[in-house]
Amino acid sequence: MKRQLVAVVVALGTLASLPAAAQFQKPEDAVKYRKAAFQVMAMHFGRIGAMVSGKAPFDAAAAASNAEVAAFMSKLPYAGFVDGTSGTEKGSPKPIVWTERAKFDEDAKKMQDEMAKLAAAAKGGNADQVKAAFGNTAGACKNCHDHFRVQ
Amino acid sequence: MKRQLVAVVVALGTLASLPAAAQFQKPEDAVKYRKAAFQVMAMHFGRIGAMVSGKAPFDAAAAASNAEVAAFMSKLPYAGFVDGTSGTEKGSPKPIVWTERAKFDEDAKKMQDEMAKLAAAAKGGNADQVKAAFGNTAGACKNCHDHFRVQ
Repeated sequence: MKRQLVAVVVALGTLASLPAAAQFQKPEDAVKYRKAAFQVMAMHFGRIGAMVSGKAPFDAAAAASNAEVAAFMSKLPYAGFVDGTSGTEKGSPKPIVWTERAKFDEDAKKMQDEMAKLAAAAKGGNADQVKAAFGNTAGACKNCHDHFRVQ
Repeated sequence: MKRQLVAVVVALGTLASLPAAAQFQKPEDAVKYRKAAFQVMAMHFGRIGAMVSGKAPFDAAAAASNAEVAAFMSKLPYAGFVDGTSGTEKGSPKPIVWTERAKFDEDAKKMQDEMAKLAAAAKGGNADQVKAAFGNTAGACKNCHDHFRVQ
């Protein structure tokens, strides 16, 4: 179990350099990409949410694999926040993403870190620890959404 | 480099059990999920395609990280092929996905295997090997599309 966790963390680490390598032919491609990546992340994260809120029974193996995917996915969408892709409809990024980029990047990193901690907790298999880590991660999501996302 | 590759392969291995753990509240959620996962995979795979076709310069580090993500993503979409989600518009899965499920699963596995080989080749950093592995992977994609996807 521990060896697997180390492997996942190493694998995630190699992704840290991804945004610089990212290339989109058109701004719309970047928008589609980040939406798709967030969507996949949210689907897996949401399954853990269902468990910790009691809507679904706690399943340690399912929590672990879903958290692993969510943590992997959390590294991807930010490459898609290329210049000129703010929006006005609900859920779009506000222009301040680009004028307050350092704060945005910090908020993104915070979410990725919490997601990695959630993956570690889920590998451990303790439902209480998963619940606590899920709450911290959800808080990191909300923190960024409240400031940077069109309500 | 070799240690990283082992780490990635181990990480990918833990995902093999994902489909069984997958749950979607509605069939539409499953469709959205598989489309999003394929979209992210295709974006990363396409960047390697641009390199091997000469549209972009070969960048070993970028090829490696893109192939790593594509290989990870290749494990995800199939959980979204739940019953009753065939379609008639271009790009949708034909009903034979469900009546010929063993062949579909075999084709999916073939693509995933080729994608993992591409990730291994890309880690190695040899452009010719990346090109060959890319071709094999693209062939596995096409093989499945030709039979199971609405043209």
